[in-house]
Amino acid sequence: MTQHAPEVTPDLFWETMVAFQRSAALKTAIDLDIFTKIGEGNSTAAEIAKAAGAAERGVRILSDSLTVMGFLTKTGNSYALTEACAAFLDKRSQMYLGSAVNFILSPQQKRGFEDLTDAVKNGGSRVTGEASMDPESEMWVEFARSMAPLMFPTAQAVAENVGLDPDREIKLLDIAAGHGIYGIMVGKRYPNAQIYGADWNKVLTVAKENAEKFGVADRYHTIGGDAFESDFGPGYDVILIPNFLHHFDVPTCEKFIRKLDASLAEGGKILTVEFVPNEDRVSPPPSAMFPLVMLAATPGGDAYTYSELKKMFENSGFANNEIVELHPMPQHLIISTR
Amino acid sequence: MTQHAPEVTPDLFWETMVAFQRSAALKTAIDLDIFTKIGEGNSTAAEIAKAAGAAERGVRILSDSLTVMGFLTKTGNSYALTEACAAFLDKRSQMYLGSAVNFILSPQQKRGFEDLTDAVKNGGSRVTGEASMDPESEMWVEFARSMAPLMFPTAQAVAENVGLDPDREIKLLDIAAGHGIYGIMVGKRYPNAQIYGADWNKVLTVAKENAEKFGVADRYHTIGGDAFESDFGPGYDVILIPNFLHHFDVPTCEKFIRKLDASLAEGGKILTVEFVPNEDRVSPPPSAMFPLVMLAATPGGDAYTYSELKKMFENSGFANNEIVELHPMPQHLIISTR
Repeated sequence: MTQHAPEVTPDLFWETMVAFQRSAALKTAIDLDIFTKIGEGNSTAAEIAKAAGAAERGVRILSDSLTVMGFLTKTGNSYALTEACAAFLDKRSQMYLGSAVNFILSPQQKRGFEDLTDAVKNGGSRVTGEASMDPESEMWVEFARSMAPLMFPTAQAVAENVGLDPDREIKLLDIAAGHGIYGIMVGKRYPNAQIYGADWNKVLTVAKENAEKFGVADRYHTIGGDAFESDFGPGYDVILIPNFLHHFDVPTCEKFIRKLDASLAEGGKILTVEFVPNEDRVSPPPSAMFPLVMLAATPGGDAYTYSELKKMFENSGFANNEIVELHPMPQHLIISTR
Repeated sequence: MTQHAPEVTPDLFWETMVAFQRSAALKTAIDLDIFTKIGEGNSTAAEIAKAAGAAERGVRILSDSLTVMGFLTKTGNSYALTEACAAFLDKRSQMYLGSAVNFILSPQQKRGFEDLTDAVKNGGSRVTGEASMDPESEMWVEFARSMAPLMFPTAQAVAENVGLDPDREIKLLDIAAGHGIYGIMVGKRYPNAQIYGADWNKVLTVAKENAEKFGVADRYHTIGGDAFESDFGPGYDVILIPNFLHHFDVPTCEKFIRKLDASLAEGGKILTVEFVPNEDRVSPPPSAMFPLVMLAATPGGDAYTYSELKKMFENSGFANNEIVELHPMPQHLIISTR
């Protein structure tokens, strides 16, 4: 039997080098709301261009690229949305996620990757650390507004895993609440919960808007200020730490968990949402790529493995920890008690 | 029989949105020469970091990402190059292509994609057009130096398709020669060829270096200046137009081909190298994505289908045209005679 070695090609190199062009094409399509215009029935480049206020030539080239990329289909000169595109990128869909480009592809986030070589040399970012820690920065306001839709499925999965009697009166703290979606989703499932959202004041305006929108405003309280400095007060039954620990190094995380310990009621639990790579640190892809985002965006952040997270909690007074998959979302939930 | 619809997920949206991060990680790895350091035998993050003059933490996170992306393998804490990575991204390999990031991911090329929304609205780029048409710009010098390695396989395939008696004395013109690789490869196959490289003077210094390197300097002549203004002189047997026409709109291309007609000898032929999408304009992927690059980088450039190119040549005095695949490279060769 003859064995044929697979052809060694530079294809992966080429595809990866030009991958930024695909991000840019997607952002442009969302900026010009091309997907919604097609969803509304405009199908030729001329029709879409007219509806979007753009040039036919530009829209023709962009739409062909979006077809190659798998967002559109093309029949003759007519473009149509794929099923996934109709669900997530047509603004008229309740599952619309397109706003996420406003954060993920913001100049600030891209800046971190412009300076990635420096971050690798230095072992951490020297550019965006300040912005991400500045209470007056608009960055987290943009995050809160843009990323909320992406958080729903994860927040709902978290709410299903709180594991308390649904009628119980609970006092709930949502750390770095941002859009507030995590606290709000848990609050909706626990109608007698009082929800406390902690974040910088600017960002909390978004959380309050969402509390209003989801009908929990009468039970929603805010604690403005730096999470490391704020007085959260005592007696919380549940404390949520969604997508927060990854911004910091291990000593900072442990110090923060000890602070939360002081605010947690007898028998209370901490629910942490994180990207958790496997112990090999190179799988599964979404979680294993996340440390790079933190390298580009923070001085010392990372995505921690479960054994690292477990040790952080154990070192900070939480002997019992379990990890729960939030399938189909890439993140995990860690449930910690004393 | 029950039919199960495929799960509709936002995976493609997410992957495309963050694709720019992969381009950045690859560029950083090449900037820091991580692949060569690994090829030389450094395998742990600590060893690679020391060899590359970078922080271990930065290298660990970068190398894990490169493993997820398929450039490295990881066993325990040791990283190794994939076969393709060793062939194309280790500087010690004769097939090293890494320098291409210096052009494809240059600030100027990325700038075009930063302003892609404006280019779609306007029907063409308003930012980089000037730079690409400025004889004093360093952009094409960078192109000539960075992209030459990527051109070899295509240039060799072109040389194989010239179709003349190898001992014949031929006069050969290479339009927008740049790195000069196309003319030089044809010249090497035709030892009695006199090669004329036309480009801006700054760029021709790179072509002359390469002519020296490949032993054809004694037969290499240069014609400096703007291709639309230069006097190429008469009597060429073969004129190469490699990767040039896509920068311009159809009337400009036709005008230019008529100019070449005046310089072509009786029985001479024009060999054009281009990205040629199929008539549907959405396949095959590399050629079908190329118009987007031209939209971002030029006021009126495009990748033309074969029927469009054929019509351009017919309108400019070339009745006989054929198209040749340059497999495994994505480009095509168009051979035109009167």
